[in-house]
Amino acid sequence: MRYLYHLPLSPFSRKVRLVLSEKRLPYEPRLEKVWDRRPEYLDMNPAGTVPTLLEDNGLVIPDSNVICEYLEEAYPDTVLMGRTLAERVEVRRLCAWFDGKFAQEVTRNLLGEKFMKRLSGRGEPDAYAIRNGYTALRHHLQYIGWLAETRKWLAGANISLADFAAAGHLSALDFASDVDWTISPAVKDWYARMKSRPSFRGILSDRVPGVTPPAHYADLDF
Amino acid sequence: MRYLYHLPLSPFSRKVRLVLSEKRLPYEPRLEKVWDRRPEYLDMNPAGTVPTLLEDNGLVIPDSNVICEYLEEAYPDTVLMGRTLAERVEVRRLCAWFDGKFAQEVTRNLLGEKFMKRLSGRGEPDAYAIRNGYTALRHHLQYIGWLAETRKWLAGANISLADFAAAGHLSALDFASDVDWTISPAVKDWYARMKSRPSFRGILSDRVPGVTPPAHYADLDF
Repeated sequence: MRYLYHLPLSPFSRKVRLVLSEKRLPYEPRLEKVWDRRPEYLDMNPAGTVPTLLEDNGLVIPDSNVICEYLEEAYPDTVLMGRTLAERVEVRRLCAWFDGKFAQEVTRNLLGEKFMKRLSGRGEPDAYAIRNGYTALRHHLQYIGWLAETRKWLAGANISLADFAAAGHLSALDFASDVDWTISPAVKDWYARMKSRPSFRGILSDRVPGVTPPAHYADLDF
Repeated sequence: MRYLYHLPLSPFSRKVRLVLSEKRLPYEPRLEKVWDRRPEYLDMNPAGTVPTLLEDNGLVIPDSNVICEYLEEAYPDTVLMGRTLAERVEVRRLCAWFDGKFAQEVTRNLLGEKFMKRLSGRGEPDAYAIRNGYTALRHHLQYIGWLAETRKWLAGANISLADFAAAGHLSALDFASDVDWTISPAVKDWYARMKSRPSFRGILSDRVPGVTPPAHYADLDF
Protein backbone atom coordinates (compact mmCIF):
# COMPACT_ATOMS: atom_id res chain seq x y z
CA MET A 1 0.00 0.00 0.00
CA ARG A 2 1.08 3.58 -0.70
CA TYR A 3 0.90 5.94 2.29
CA LEU A 4 0.87 9.73 2.38
CA TYR A 5 1.84 11.37 5.66
CA HIS A 6 0.07 14.71 5.64
CA LEU A 7 -1.82 17.45 7.45
CA PRO A 8 -5.24 18.58 6.15
CA LEU A 9 -4.41 22.31 6.23
CA SER A 10 -0.93 21.90 4.68
CA PRO A 11 -1.05 23.35 1.15
CA PHE A 12 1.93 21.18 0.22
CA SER A 13 0.07 18.04 1.34
CA ARG A 14 -3.02 19.16 -0.57
CA LYS A 15 -1.00 19.62 -3.77
CA VAL A 16 0.31 16.03 -3.54
CA ARG A 17 -3.15 14.63 -2.69
CA LEU A 18 -4.52 16.33 -5.82
CA VAL A 19 -1.67 15.02 -7.99
CA LEU A 20 -2.04 11.46 -6.67
CA SER A 21 -5.76 11.58 -7.47
CA GLU A 22 -5.22 13.13 -10.93
CA LYS A 23 -2.78 10.32 -11.71
CA ARG A 24 -5.29 7.77 -10.30
CA LEU A 25 -2.77 6.44 -7.80
CA PRO A 26 -4.54 4.97 -4.75
CA TYR A 27 -3.05 5.84 -1.36
CA GLU A 28 -3.91 5.79 2.30
CA PRO A 29 -3.60 9.16 4.06
CA ARG A 30 -1.92 9.20 7.46
CA LEU A 31 -2.22 12.23 9.70
CA GLU A 32 1.26 13.35 10.83
CA LYS A 33 1.30 15.90 13.64
CA VAL A 34 4.72 17.30 12.74
CA TRP A 35 4.92 19.30 15.98
CA ASP A 36 5.18 15.98 17.88
CA ARG A 37 8.52 15.37 16.07
CA ARG A 38 7.99 11.61 16.08
CA PRO A 39 11.41 9.90 15.84
CA GLU A 40 10.15 7.30 13.32
CA TYR A 41 8.91 10.12 11.12
CA LEU A 42 12.15 12.11 11.40
CA ASP A 43 14.00 8.98 10.30
CA MET A 44 11.95 9.01 7.10
CA ASN A 45 12.13 12.79 6.63
CA PRO A 46 14.89 14.57 8.61
CA ALA A 47 13.40 17.94 7.62
CA GLY A 48 10.33 17.01 9.71
CA THR A 49 7.86 18.52 7.21
CA VAL A 50 4.72 17.13 5.58
CA PRO A 51 4.03 15.56 3.18
CA THR A 52 6.12 12.39 2.93
CA LEU A 53 5.15 9.65 0.51
CA LEU A 54 5.89 6.02 1.32
CA GLU A 55 5.67 4.00 -1.88
CA ASP A 56 4.48 0.39 -1.85
CA ASN A 57 8.01 -0.70 -2.83
CA GLY A 58 9.36 0.93 0.35
CA LEU A 59 10.80 4.06 -1.31
CA VAL A 60 10.46 7.06 1.02
CA ILE A 61 9.97 10.43 -0.69
CA PRO A 62 9.87 13.60 1.43
CA ASP A 63 9.08 17.17 0.28
CA SER A 64 6.10 18.00 -1.93
CA ASN A 65 8.30 19.20 -4.78
CA VAL A 66 10.45 16.06 -4.71
CA ILE A 67 7.29 13.92 -4.56
CA CYS A 68 5.71 15.66 -7.55
CA GLU A 69 8.91 15.37 -9.65
CA TYR A 70 9.07 11.69 -8.70
CA LEU A 71 5.40 11.03 -9.54
CA GLU A 72 5.84 12.71 -12.93
CA GLU A 73 8.82 10.48 -13.74
CA ALA A 74 7.41 7.26 -12.27
CA TYR A 75 3.85 7.66 -13.60
CA PRO A 76 4.15 9.69 -16.82
CA ASP A 77 0.80 8.69 -18.38
CA THR A 78 -0.91 11.80 -17.01
CA VAL A 79 1.42 14.70 -17.88
CA LEU A 80 1.21 17.50 -15.32
CA MET A 81 4.51 19.33 -15.86
CA GLY A 82 4.34 20.25 -19.53
CA ARG A 83 5.98 18.63 -22.54
CA THR A 84 8.38 21.19 -24.04
CA LEU A 85 11.33 22.69 -22.17
CA ALA A 86 9.63 26.10 -22.15
CA GLU A 87 6.34 24.68 -20.83
CA ARG A 88 8.19 22.82 -18.08
CA VAL A 89 10.06 25.98 -17.09
CA GLU A 90 6.78 27.88 -16.77
CA VAL A 91 5.09 25.12 -14.73
CA ARG A 92 8.06 24.84 -12.37
CA ARG A 93 8.46 28.63 -12.16
CA LEU A 94 4.87 29.03 -10.97
CA CYS A 95 5.17 26.10 -8.55
CA ALA A 96 8.27 27.77 -7.08
CA TRP A 97 6.41 31.07 -6.89
CA PHE A 98 3.41 29.54 -5.05
CA ASP A 99 5.42 27.27 -2.76
CA GLY A 100 8.10 29.92 -2.16
CA LYS A 101 6.99 33.54 -2.33
CA PHE A 102 3.21 33.02 -1.95
CA ALA A 103 3.71 30.48 0.86
CA GLN A 104 6.06 32.76 2.75
CA GLU A 105 4.15 36.02 2.34
CA VAL A 106 0.58 34.70 2.54
CA THR A 107 0.11 31.13 3.77
CA ARG A 108 2.67 31.27 6.59
CA ASN A 109 1.37 34.66 7.77
CA LEU A 110 -2.26 33.51 7.78
CA LEU A 111 -2.55 29.75 8.37
CA GLY A 112 0.85 29.63 10.08
CA GLU A 113 -0.03 32.35 12.57
CA LYS A 114 -3.68 31.43 13.11
CA PHE A 115 -3.46 27.64 13.34
CA MET A 116 0.05 26.15 13.21
CA LYS A 117 1.32 28.29 16.09
CA ARG A 118 -1.52 27.16 18.34
CA LEU A 119 -1.34 23.52 17.27
CA SER A 120 2.42 23.37 17.80
CA GLY A 121 2.37 25.35 21.05
CA ARG A 122 4.57 28.15 19.67
CA GLY A 123 2.62 31.00 21.19
CA GLU A 124 -0.03 33.48 20.14
CA PRO A 125 -0.83 34.71 16.62
CA ASP A 126 1.03 37.88 15.61
CA ALA A 127 -1.57 40.43 14.45
CA TYR A 128 1.06 42.31 12.41
CA ALA A 129 2.00 39.16 10.47
CA ILE A 130 -1.68 38.39 9.83
CA ARG A 131 -2.28 41.90 8.46
CA ASN A 132 0.76 41.52 6.19
CA GLY A 133 -0.63 38.19 5.03
CA TYR A 134 -3.98 39.68 3.98
CA THR A 135 -2.24 42.56 2.18
CA ALA A 136 0.02 40.15 0.29
CA LEU A 137 -2.93 37.88 -0.56
CA ARG A 138 -4.88 40.76 -2.14
CA HIS A 139 -1.80 41.76 -4.12
CA HIS A 140 -1.00 38.22 -5.27
CA LEU A 141 -4.63 37.45 -6.19
CA GLN A 142 -4.26 40.16 -8.82
CA TYR A 143 -1.22 38.41 -10.30
CA ILE A 144 -3.05 35.06 -10.30
CA GLY A 145 -6.01 36.88 -11.85
CA TRP A 146 -3.78 38.14 -14.66
CA LEU A 147 -2.62 34.57 -15.28
CA ALA A 148 -6.21 33.28 -15.23
CA GLU A 149 -7.39 36.02 -17.61
CA THR A 150 -4.66 35.49 -20.20
CA ARG A 151 -4.40 31.68 -20.16
CA LYS A 152 -6.78 28.75 -20.01
CA TRP A 153 -4.91 27.27 -17.04
CA LEU A 154 -2.35 29.09 -14.89
CA ALA A 155 0.75 27.89 -16.75
CA GLY A 156 -0.77 27.81 -20.25
CA ALA A 157 -3.12 25.78 -22.41
CA ASN A 158 -3.06 22.64 -20.24
CA ILE A 159 -3.82 21.96 -16.62
CA SER A 160 -0.55 21.44 -14.75
CA LEU A 161 1.14 21.15 -11.41
CA ALA A 162 1.02 24.96 -11.24
CA ASP A 163 -2.78 24.76 -10.93
CA PHE A 164 -2.52 22.15 -8.18
CA ALA A 165 0.16 24.11 -6.31
CA ALA A 166 -2.09 27.18 -6.45
CA ALA A 167 -5.17 25.16 -5.45
CA GLY A 168 -3.27 23.68 -2.52
CA HIS A 169 -2.70 27.12 -1.06
CA LEU A 170 -6.01 28.74 -2.01
CA SER A 171 -8.13 25.79 -0.85
CA ALA A 172 -6.39 25.72 2.53
CA LEU A 173 -6.84 29.51 2.88
CA ASP A 174 -10.48 29.19 1.78
CA PHE A 175 -11.05 26.52 4.44
CA ALA A 176 -10.03 29.18 6.98
CA SER A 177 -12.36 31.77 5.33
CA ASP A 178 -9.34 33.85 4.31
CA VAL A 179 -9.99 34.33 0.58
CA ASP A 180 -12.02 37.26 -0.76
CA TRP A 181 -13.14 35.76 -4.07
CA THR A 182 -14.62 39.08 -5.26
CA ILE A 183 -11.13 40.49 -5.88
CA SER A 184 -10.72 38.64 -9.16
CA PRO A 185 -13.64 37.06 -11.07
CA ALA A 186 -11.08 35.25 -13.25
CA VAL A 187 -9.52 33.57 -10.21
CA LYS A 188 -12.96 32.62 -8.90
CA ASP A 189 -13.88 31.10 -12.28
CA TRP A 190 -10.57 29.19 -12.44
CA TYR A 191 -11.07 27.91 -8.87
CA ALA A 192 -14.65 26.79 -9.62
CA ARG A 193 -13.24 24.71 -12.49
CA MET A 194 -10.62 23.23 -10.17
CA LYS A 195 -13.19 22.41 -7.48
CA SER A 196 -15.39 20.52 -9.91
CA ARG A 197 -12.62 18.02 -10.76
CA PRO A 198 -13.04 14.55 -9.21
CA SER A 199 -9.53 14.86 -7.69
CA PHE A 200 -10.82 17.69 -5.48
CA ARG A 201 -13.45 15.62 -3.65
CA GLY A 202 -11.14 14.53 -0.83
CA ILE A 203 -9.99 18.10 -0.23
CA LEU A 204 -13.57 19.38 -0.07
CA SER A 205 -14.61 16.78 2.51
CA ASP A 206 -11.72 17.61 4.89
CA ARG A 207 -12.57 18.21 8.51
CA VAL A 208 -10.21 19.93 10.98
CA PRO A 209 -11.00 20.07 14.71
CA GLY A 210 -11.64 23.63 15.80
CA VAL A 211 -11.93 25.10 12.29
CA THR A 212 -15.29 25.49 10.52
CA PRO A 213 -14.96 26.19 6.81
CA PRO A 214 -17.31 28.76 5.24
CA ALA A 215 -20.56 27.55 3.65
CA HIS A 216 -19.18 28.02 0.11
CA TYR A 217 -16.04 25.91 0.81
CA ALA A 218 -17.40 22.67 -0.66
CA ASP A 219 -20.01 24.33 -2.89
CA LEU A 220 -19.14 23.73 -6.56
CA ASP A 221 -21.31 26.68 -7.69
CA PHE A 222 -20.04 29.17 -5.14
CA MET B 1 25.00 34.64 -25.43
CA ARG B 2 23.73 33.04 -22.22
CA TYR B 3 23.44 35.41 -19.22
CA LEU B 4 23.17 34.59 -15.53
CA TYR B 5 21.77 37.32 -13.29
CA HIS B 6 23.28 36.66 -9.89
CA LEU B 7 24.78 37.92 -6.62
CA PRO B 8 28.22 36.65 -5.50
CA LEU B 9 27.10 35.77 -1.95
CA SER B 10 23.83 34.11 -3.03
CA PRO B 11 24.19 30.35 -2.43
CA PHE B 12 21.46 29.73 -5.02
CA SER B 13 23.44 31.68 -7.63
CA ARG B 14 26.61 29.80 -6.69
CA LYS B 15 24.88 26.45 -7.18
CA VAL B 16 23.83 27.42 -10.71
CA ARG B 17 27.29 28.83 -11.55
CA LEU B 18 28.83 25.51 -10.49
CA VAL B 19 26.31 23.51 -12.52
CA LEU B 20 26.82 25.64 -15.63
CA SER B 21 30.58 25.12 -15.34
CA GLU B 22 30.25 21.37 -14.68
CA LYS B 23 28.11 21.08 -17.81
CA ARG B 24 30.64 23.25 -19.72
CA LEU B 25 28.02 25.79 -20.68
CA PRO B 26 29.59 29.22 -21.24
CA TYR B 27 27.72 32.19 -19.80
CA GLU B 28 28.21 35.83 -18.92
CA PRO B 29 27.49 36.71 -15.27
CA ARG B 30 25.49 39.87 -14.62
CA LEU B 31 25.33 41.35 -11.15
CA GLU B 32 21.70 41.92 -10.14
CA LYS B 33 21.20 44.02 -7.03
CA VAL B 34 17.79 42.57 -6.19
CA TRP B 35 17.12 45.23 -3.56
CA ASP B 36 16.94 47.85 -6.37
CA ARG B 37 13.84 45.96 -7.67
CA ARG B 38 14.66 46.89 -11.28
CA PRO B 39 11.40 46.81 -13.31
CA GLU B 40 13.10 45.07 -16.29
CA TYR B 41 14.33 42.37 -13.92
CA LEU B 42 10.95 41.92 -12.24
CA ASP B 43 9.43 41.46 -15.71
CA MET B 44 11.79 38.51 -16.19
CA ASN B 45 11.36 37.16 -12.67
CA PRO B 46 8.29 38.44 -10.77
CA ALA B 47 9.62 36.81 -7.58
CA GLY B 48 12.55 39.28 -7.72
CA THR B 49 15.11 36.70 -6.59
CA VAL B 50 18.49 35.68 -8.00
CA PRO B 51 19.51 33.79 -9.99
CA THR B 52 17.70 34.11 -13.31
CA LEU B 53 19.12 32.48 -16.44
CA LEU B 54 18.58 34.09 -19.84
CA GLU B 55 19.26 31.47 -22.50
CA ASP B 56 20.69 32.45 -25.89
CA ASN B 57 17.36 31.48 -27.51
CA GLY B 58 15.60 34.07 -25.32
CA LEU B 59 14.10 31.62 -22.81
CA VAL B 60 13.98 33.20 -19.33
CA ILE B 61 14.40 30.78 -16.40
CA PRO B 62 14.04 32.09 -12.83
CA ASP B 63 14.68 30.21 -9.57
CA SER B 64 17.79 28.08 -8.99
CA ASN B 65 15.79 24.87 -8.68
CA VAL B 66 13.89 25.52 -11.91
CA ILE B 67 17.17 26.41 -13.66
CA CYS B 68 18.88 23.21 -12.50
CA GLU B 69 15.94 21.00 -13.56
CA TYR B 70 15.96 22.78 -16.93
CA LEU B 71 19.74 22.40 -17.41
CA GLU B 72 19.51 18.68 -16.58
CA GLU B 73 16.79 18.21 -19.22
CA ALA B 74 18.29 20.49 -21.87
CA TYR B 75 21.92 19.36 -21.46
CA PRO B 76 21.78 15.75 -20.25
CA ASP B 77 25.34 14.74 -21.24
CA THR B 78 26.65 15.46 -17.76
CA VAL B 79 24.21 13.75 -15.38
CA LEU B 80 23.96 15.61 -12.05
CA MET B 81 20.59 14.40 -10.74
CA GLY B 82 21.04 10.64 -10.64
CA ARG B 83 19.83 7.97 -13.05
CA THR B 84 17.39 5.74 -11.14
CA LEU B 85 14.18 6.96 -9.53
CA ALA B 86 15.61 6.31 -6.07
CA GLU B 87 18.85 8.19 -6.84
CA ARG B 88 16.89 11.14 -8.18
CA VAL B 89 14.70 11.22 -5.07
CA GLU B 90 17.78 11.34 -2.85
CA VAL B 91 19.48 14.09 -4.89
CA ARG B 92 16.33 16.21 -4.92
CA ARG B 93 15.62 15.51 -1.23
CA LEU B 94 19.04 16.83 -0.24
CA CYS B 95 18.73 19.84 -2.54
CA ALA B 96 15.38 20.63 -0.91
CA TRP B 97 16.96 20.19 2.52
CA PHE B 98 19.86 22.57 1.74
CA ASP B 99 17.82 25.16 -0.14
CA GLY B 100 14.91 24.90 2.32
CA LYS B 101 15.77 23.97 5.89
CA PHE B 102 19.50 24.77 5.84
CA ALA B 103 18.93 28.04 3.96
CA GLN B 104 16.24 29.17 6.38
CA GLU B 105 17.95 28.15 9.63
CA VAL B 106 21.57 28.93 8.73
CA THR B 107 22.17 30.99 5.60
CA ARG B 108 19.35 33.48 6.13
CA ASN B 109 20.28 33.94 9.81
CA LEU B 110 23.99 34.50 9.04
CA LEU B 111 24.47 35.97 5.55
CA GLY B 112 20.95 37.40 5.50
CA GLU B 113 21.37 39.24 8.79
CA LYS B 114 25.02 40.27 8.36
CA PHE B 115 25.05 41.35 4.72
CA MET B 116 21.71 41.32 2.92
CA LYS B 117 19.99 43.50 5.52
CA ARG B 118 22.68 46.15 5.21
CA LEU B 119 22.88 45.96 1.42
CA SER B 120 19.12 46.23 1.04
CA GLY B 121 18.70 48.92 3.70
CA ARG B 122 16.44 46.75 5.88
CA GLY B 123 17.99 47.71 9.18
CA GLU B 124 20.54 46.31 11.59
CA PRO B 125 21.58 42.67 12.07
CA ASP B 126 19.61 40.80 14.73
CA ALA B 127 22.11 39.27 17.20
CA TYR B 128 19.55 36.66 18.31
CA ALA B 129 19.05 35.44 14.71
CA ILE B 130 22.83 35.29 14.18
CA ARG B 131 23.29 33.19 17.32
CA ASN B 132 20.52 30.85 16.15
CA GLY B 133 22.27 30.62 12.78
CA TYR B 134 25.57 29.49 14.33
CA THR B 135 23.81 26.94 16.53
CA ALA B 136 21.93 25.50 13.56
CA LEU B 137 25.12 25.45 11.45
CA ARG B 138 26.98 23.38 14.06
CA HIS B 139 24.04 21.00 14.28
CA HIS B 140 23.63 20.66 10.52
CA LEU B 141 27.39 20.21 9.91
CA GLN B 142 27.07 17.00 11.90
CA TYR B 143 24.32 15.74 9.59
CA ILE B 144 26.40 16.67 6.52
CA GLY B 145 29.35 14.96 8.21
CA TRP B 146 27.31 11.79 8.58
CA LEU B 147 26.48 11.91 4.86
CA ALA B 148 30.14 12.54 3.97
CA GLU B 149 31.32 9.69 6.19
CA THR B 150 28.92 7.09 4.84
CA ARG B 151 28.92 8.01 1.13
CA LYS B 152 31.49 9.01 -1.46
CA TRP B 153 29.45 12.10 -2.38
CA LEU B 154 26.58 13.58 -0.39
CA ALA B 155 23.77 11.80 -2.26
CA GLY B 156 25.62 8.56 -2.99
CA ALA B 157 28.32 7.11 -5.23
CA ASN B 158 28.29 9.93 -7.78
CA ILE B 159 28.74 13.67 -7.54
CA SER B 160 25.36 15.35 -7.93
CA LEU B 161 23.38 18.52 -7.62
CA ALA B 162 23.19 17.81 -3.88
CA ASP B 163 26.95 18.46 -3.63
CA PHE B 164 26.62 21.71 -5.57
CA ALA B 165 23.64 22.86 -3.50
CA ALA B 166 25.66 22.17 -0.34
CA ALA B 167 28.76 23.84 -1.78
CA GLY B 168 26.72 26.90 -2.74
CA HIS B 169 25.73 27.46 0.89
CA LEU B 170 28.99 26.41 2.55
CA SER B 171 31.22 28.38 0.16
CA ALA B 172 29.17 31.54 0.70
CA LEU B 173 29.29 31.02 4.47
CA ASP B 174 33.04 30.32 4.27
CA PHE B 175 33.54 33.55 2.34
CA ALA B 176 32.09 35.32 5.38
CA SER B 177 34.37 33.30 7.75
CA ASP B 178 31.31 31.59 9.25
CA VAL B 179 32.29 27.91 8.94
CA ASP B 180 34.21 26.08 11.67
CA TRP B 181 35.76 23.31 9.55
CA THR B 182 37.10 21.50 12.65
CA ILE B 183 33.58 20.31 13.55
CA SER B 184 33.63 17.53 10.96
CA PRO B 185 36.82 16.27 9.28
CA ALA B 186 34.62 14.37 6.79
CA VAL B 187 32.90 17.59 5.70
CA LYS B 188 36.27 19.34 5.40
CA ASP B 189 37.61 16.52 3.24
CA TRP B 190 34.50 16.55 1.05
CA TYR B 191 34.75 20.35 0.67
CA ALA B 192 38.45 20.16 -0.24
CA ARG B 193 37.50 17.74 -3.04
CA MET B 194 34.77 20.15 -4.20
CA LYS B 195 37.13 23.15 -4.13
CA SER B 196 39.69 21.39 -6.32
CA ARG B 197 37.21 20.94 -9.19
CA PRO B 198 37.74 23.31 -12.15
CA SER B 199 34.10 24.42 -11.85
CA PHE B 200 34.95 26.01 -8.48
CA ARG B 201 37.52 28.47 -9.83
CA GLY B 202 35.05 31.28 -10.48
CA ILE B 203 33.57 30.94 -6.98
CA LEU B 204 37.01 31.07 -5.36
CA SER B 205 37.98 34.26 -7.20
CA ASP B 206 34.84 36.14 -6.13
CA ARG B 207 35.27 39.59 -4.66
CA VAL B 208 32.56 41.37 -2.65
CA PRO B 209 32.98 45.04 -1.61
CA GLY B 210 33.27 45.32 2.18
CA VAL B 211 33.77 41.58 2.83
CA THR B 212 37.24 40.05 3.14
CA PRO B 213 37.23 36.25 2.94
CA PRO B 214 39.52 34.30 5.28
CA ALA B 215 42.98 33.29 4.05
CA HIS B 216 41.90 29.66 3.58
CA TYR B 217 38.88 30.57 1.40
CA ALA B 218 40.63 30.02 -1.95
CA ASP B 219 43.32 27.66 -0.59
CA LEU B 220 42.86 24.19 -2.09
CA ASP B 221 44.92 22.57 0.72
CA PHE B 222 43.20 24.35 3.58
